[in-house]
Amino acid sequence: MKSLENYWKYINDALNQKLQAGDFDEPKGLYEPCKYILQNGGKRVRASLVLLASKMFSNSYEQALPVALAFETFHNFTLIHDDIMDKAPLRRGIPTVHTKWDENTAILSGDAVMIIAYKFFEESGKYVPQLFRLLNKTALEVCEGQQYDVDLEVANLQDPIVSEETYLRMIELKTSVLIAACLKAGAIVGGASDNDADKLYEIGKMIGIAFQLQDDVLDTFGNEATFGKKIGGDIRVNKKTYLLIKALQTPQSTDKEQLIKLMSSTEFDEKTKYDHVVALYNKAHVKEQSIEKIEEYFQQAMRLVDEIQLPDERKGELIAFMNELVNRNY
Amino acid sequence: MKSLENYWKYINDALNQKLQAGDFDEPKGLYEPCKYILQNGGKRVRASLVLLASKMFSNSYEQALPVALAFETFHNFTLIHDDIMDKAPLRRGIPTVHTKWDENTAILSGDAVMIIAYKFFEESGKYVPQLFRLLNKTALEVCEGQQYDVDLEVANLQDPIVSEETYLRMIELKTSVLIAACLKAGAIVGGASDNDADKLYEIGKMIGIAFQLQDDVLDTFGNEATFGKKIGGDIRVNKKTYLLIKALQTPQSTDKEQLIKLMSSTEFDEKTKYDHVVALYNKAHVKEQSIEKIEEYFQQAMRLVDEIQLPDERKGELIAFMNELVNRNY
Repeated sequence: MKSLENYWKYINDALNQKLQAGDFDEPKGLYEPCKYILQNGGKRVRASLVLLASKMFSNSYEQALPVALAFETFHNFTLIHDDIMDKAPLRRGIPTVHTKWDENTAILSGDAVMIIAYKFFEESGKYVPQLFRLLNKTALEVCEGQQYDVDLEVANLQDPIVSEETYLRMIELKTSVLIAACLKAGAIVGGASDNDADKLYEIGKMIGIAFQLQDDVLDTFGNEATFGKKIGGDIRVNKKTYLLIKALQTPQSTDKEQLIKLMSSTEFDEKTKYDHVVALYNKAHVKEQSIEKIEEYFQQAMRLVDEIQLPDERKGELIAFMNELVNRNY
Repeated sequence: MKSLENYWKYINDALNQKLQAGDFDEPKGLYEPCKYILQNGGKRVRASLVLLASKMFSNSYEQALPVALAFETFHNFTLIHDDIMDKAPLRRGIPTVHTKWDENTAILSGDAVMIIAYKFFEESGKYVPQLFRLLNKTALEVCEGQQYDVDLEVANLQDPIVSEETYLRMIELKTSVLIAACLKAGAIVGGASDNDADKLYEIGKMIGIAFQLQDDVLDTFGNEATFGKKIGGDIRVNKKTYLLIKALQTPQSTDKEQLIKLMSSTEFDEKTKYDHVVALYNKAHVKEQSIEKIEEYFQQAMRLVDEIQLPDERKGELIAFMNELVNRNY
């Protein structure tokens, strides 16, 4: 992300330094996989958001660095364990931990990465108790989100759990609360008032949900060249996206039946299935409904940005990030 | 354990109350396995030790309860994930989490149990930062111990890693540091001086190692009726125990060769193998050497108990526990 680019190198350098300081060397069988995932990049969105939020309230962001590394590290813990559960062979273009090593190694190293995340928090001085509670709450919510994701995945399409409400709750927990916590934590160590810190939390939640909804739209309606991966993946694997859940609310029972049939099987020809499903999505106007919903969350977040007790120039970076997020086609 | 019996019901009641307070209800797929392991007992040794240590320095132990529950919960997290790695079907006589549910559920619920452990710490008031650091350090060491255990398990018997040094380091990290941290944390919230709290940490480490060494002795030389499980399990599965590692140090190269042959295969008849291995153990006097080592750790711990700045009557419960531990035949 262009709006976060400035932080990227700073975060990577600091993380590398921490990991090479000697605390995480032996046994190699434990720590090499930890370093492998932590040093193999990603966009560092979460750490950047901590720094960005901190800089809104303070002239520097160094004080937020341990917290930024903690949240980034926590995020990587979730990736290691999620990848085992999803049996994902690749992450960021390279083999996942359980593929490069094995499942047991990935379980144990994932545990260690979570503890390392907590450890990075130790350096936050007087803010430790408050941040500690925030991380605990968030971490447990992320686990809850992952479980709702599993529950949705295994449910058949007529199960009442497959609802807009559960879906939004799932992405809120699985993705948004971590974004929210990053912004709030950055604000806290930047010296924000409780009120402003809470506002940043809500902003994070809104943009996190908007981001995820947008992902669903792009996966089906995006442009392959800009999106960077094959369009239609969600339809191919029968993923219960926002689009599908909205389309299932259609009053046309024949359309609903067709959709259930198409999205409950992997037997259909990929191209034919995609075309059929998209036709039904179009008929139900789910793309438009999704974009409307995204816009709603975005506007809600923007109103909250307005309410933050800071001069406008201090909000520029956050607004740039939000605009970039909502206008992305990748 | 008789010396800890008084704490058992108190801990169970408190834990049940916490788990039923409504914080850990939904999604059920996540929290039912968490409650299953946390409420299905065990001896609550770790939680009891927190309370016991706290009571040494204070007239009550209620203040130590959140810490006690935190450490007990952390211990149960390690059990869930270790049981997956060991493919263990049973724990405390009932199916393990990954057997009753599945591996993915056990990974995610294990993660949640670890976070719940951290959450229980939140209620420790002014001690939060200090206890937080202690738990982080200990938690990471327990992961290191588990990795050394894996490294030892997969190594062949001639690998230099199969040494007394690595073995002692492994049990120190995998078992003892948690016992040590429990005693130290209890002391801290009981109001002990740093010096006394550190002494309790060292005592915990010594008795933790002694306990594990004794486990090795009992598994091979114990009495089935009092030990409560079949004797010879370690020999049957070629476990690299202290006994085996000591026996491999024998100067008789023919004995060593025989031992390597016997303990590298699962082809031998169980009874014949046991008899042969025990004969070689006896020839190398490893039982006596182990008992000597246990006694050494025990005496070292006792000397530290002496040094604690408390009247003798305040140490009675700890000494009773230690005596019970070292004299056990179960």
